[in-house]
Amino acid sequence: MLKEQLLNVQKKSPLIHNITNYVTVNDCANVLLACGGSPIMADDIEEVEEITSICGGLNINIGTLNQNTIKSMLVAGKKANQLSHPIILDPVGAGASALRTETALSLLEKVQFTVIRGNISEIKTLALGFGMTKGVDADAADAITSDNLDDVIIMAKKFAQKTGAVIAITGTIDIVTDGKKTFIIKNGHPMMSKITGTGCMLTAMISAYVVANPSSLVEAVAASICAMGLSGEIAFSRLSEKDGTASFRMYLIDAISNLTPSVLEKGAKYEIR
Amino acid sequence: MLKEQLLNVQKKSPLIHNITNYVTVNDCANVLLACGGSPIMADDIEEVEEITSICGGLNINIGTLNQNTIKSMLVAGKKANQLSHPIILDPVGAGASALRTETALSLLEKVQFTVIRGNISEIKTLALGFGMTKGVDADAADAITSDNLDDVIIMAKKFAQKTGAVIAITGTIDIVTDGKKTFIIKNGHPMMSKITGTGCMLTAMISAYVVANPSSLVEAVAASICAMGLSGEIAFSRLSEKDGTASFRMYLIDAISNLTPSVLEKGAKYEIR
Amino acid sequence: MLKEQLLNVQKKSPLIHNITNYVTVNDCANVLLACGGSPIMADDIEEVEEITSICGGLNINIGTLNQNTIKSMLVAGKKANQLSHPIILDPVGAGASALRTETALSLLEKVQFTVIRGNISEIKTLALGFGMTKGVDADAADAITSDNLDDVIIMAKKFAQKTGAVIAITGTIDIVTDGKKTFIIKNGHPMMSKITGTGCMLTAMISAYVVANPSSLVEAVAASICAMGLSGEIAFSRLSEKDGTASFRMYLIDAISNLTPSVLEKGAKYEIR
Repeated sequence: MLKEQLLNVQKKSPLIHNITNYVTVNDCANVLLACGGSPIMADDIEEVEEITSICGGLNINIGTLNQNTIKSMLVAGKKANQLSHPIILDPVGAGASALRTETALSLLEKVQFTVIRGNISEIKTLALGFGMTKGVDADAADAITSDNLDDVIIMAKKFAQKTGAVIAITGTIDIVTDGKKTFIIKNGHPMMSKITGTGCMLTAMISAYVVANPSSLVEAVAASICAMGLSGEIAFSRLSEKDGTASFRMYLIDAISNLTPSVLEKGAKYEIR
Repeated sequence: MLKEQLLNVQKKSPLIHNITNYVTVNDCANVLLACGGSPIMADDIEEVEEITSICGGLNINIGTLNQNTIKSMLVAGKKANQLSHPIILDPVGAGASALRTETALSLLEKVQFTVIRGNISEIKTLALGFGMTKGVDADAADAITSDNLDDVIIMAKKFAQKTGAVIAITGTIDIVTDGKKTFIIKNGHPMMSKITGTGCMLTAMISAYVVANPSSLVEAVAASICAMGLSGEIAFSRLSEKDGTASFRMYLIDAISNLTPSVLEKGAKYEIR
Repeated sequence: MLKEQLLNVQKKSPLIHNITNYVTVNDCANVLLACGGSPIMADDIEEVEEITSICGGLNINIGTLNQNTIKSMLVAGKKANQLSHPIILDPVGAGASALRTETALSLLEKVQFTVIRGNISEIKTLALGFGMTKGVDADAADAITSDNLDDVIIMAKKFAQKTGAVIAITGTIDIVTDGKKTFIIKNGHPMMSKITGTGCMLTAMISAYVVANPSSLVEAVAASICAMGLSGEIAFSRLSEKDGTASFRMYLIDAISNLTPSVLEKGAKYEIR
């Protein structure tokens, strides 16, 4: 089922406006190009409305937010809402500082998001309104296991219903839900957490998939998460003895750029509830 | 003819001051080192005059401009002019927002540039004074073909005469002109547009070539464009079946770092009008 | 002796708060993950105290400092001092502009650093209180040779005693001293200077080693410098004919991620005085 979503990205090559962090921005741009989309990065308040207007969607990532970019995120988000452009939020580190938590909550209040993607600690922080995330990685105590999977799905569904957004929680097991239909995804490889930016790259990729598939949002998000996880598996399979994390990162983006709809269809590991 | 220009870069190792975007800045630094130059990045208004003073040339790239860096670009540009240092402009996304168009036009008015390099949409925007660029890539409608090549050359020559700068328009076909002598260059590979930053990297490289070759400016710009395009061809030739865009990017910078004057001389594909 | 220090990084996986430049920030994050640590980047003044509180140590790098981040560095540094967290300074380009020199000196005055790592020109600038660095690389005139080694060691020891910090001067020969015990390290490869960011990556890595080894600071700094140099040697040994500087950069981070305590122990080349 998920091959159509990738096919649409490749056919439409959606242009995505990114207001994102300076740590992984180059990776996000390269992944958008690799998956078939097209990136533009712009964060000055004087131009974000215009830039978002010429794009198909807006990707907001708070990874290295500051006083200037926070204002730009809000202005761009409102403009994208006016134009009915999809908006995707990556609440990097929500729960790790009041500034991050409050910025994410304030954006949720003032902007209608299409998709919110984070790790379990970040999403719990936003769903509960407060949190205690340790850094930009999920807390071990929060990890999704087969024991707590049902509880996490209930939380994700409620948060989807409350926000009107597709919620994507990624980790060893990934959950995607629009409040009704839920995908449980098991692609990926542990080595993806040994390089920076796999979360940010995924959110950028989700943006392209969502813009290219307006009538199948939850499937589009699930397809992009399967695509990223499958690319991680392919990357791992290419590693030779002397290769390490930097080779893995290159093979990951290589795999994204080479992924075909049929390979995605065959390699995607998910169930629908 | 172009081998001397590369030889001079390798002999003189020019130090380049870059005020550039945070998307491709790491690539620009690595490409400057790879081609034989040396980079320094500095954009705070308190230090840009001093930094530009210790460098051989200034590379201004408006890829992620903001209120602070716009001021720094102007201050650094005036200082570099006072010192008669070459200044190179990359008007990324001119035409995509009023802020970008106006910043580029204002810089052109107040700073004497040595070289201006952009895609056809960006250069048309600056030559006409307004534009409708779709993002950071050239509009398909603007593409240089054998049909409109003569018209584009006339436009570029006029713009060179008006600005007193060497104009470089890059795409499938590249045009370099100082208003009198014109190079038409056909090196390169389409895969270069599937990674972010090839334009920014090229402009950084042009900066090193121009600083190292003050008495042959138009040849220096042409040589660096041939060097980048030829490196793209070499990178493509190294791709194996599982390699994708990230491997291509690595092979591109590898090729730049391994390029010798004689390989450049042999591989350069250009005509002079 | 140095294997315990790496083992501790791998066991404790220290979380490091980085206020750093946008040129090499992605490399720093990937190197922290590769060596066994965990990175978070945050530079807005509203959140740096909170972020530094949840981390084990603070890495301050002035590579692209600006008016906003300078204030954040000071606030974060004071907080880290209150919490007795290790703080590491990389005075990139001190001596190249008054802003860099004064910022570094002002930080030294107001914050107690645990380690200061720079090239010889940067450290001389801070030790003398003024300097004339040419860019972000060490001046050739300052290079450490067997002739001036003893004088450099005396300077480094005095600066260590004055600041109470471990001083690390890196170049062809590396010197690490706490004012009493001095390591002279000869790992590394000249190709490391042909890519951007090896200094910044090293300082990030030192941060992880120091946080993981509070009772053997000078050994921790020496171990991380040996680890980086040895990784450079391993990277160089992997280069094939067509590989260039970008492949070298990937092999370097690969080697860091694959380095084991016993390989470090065997490959480390140092003497203690």
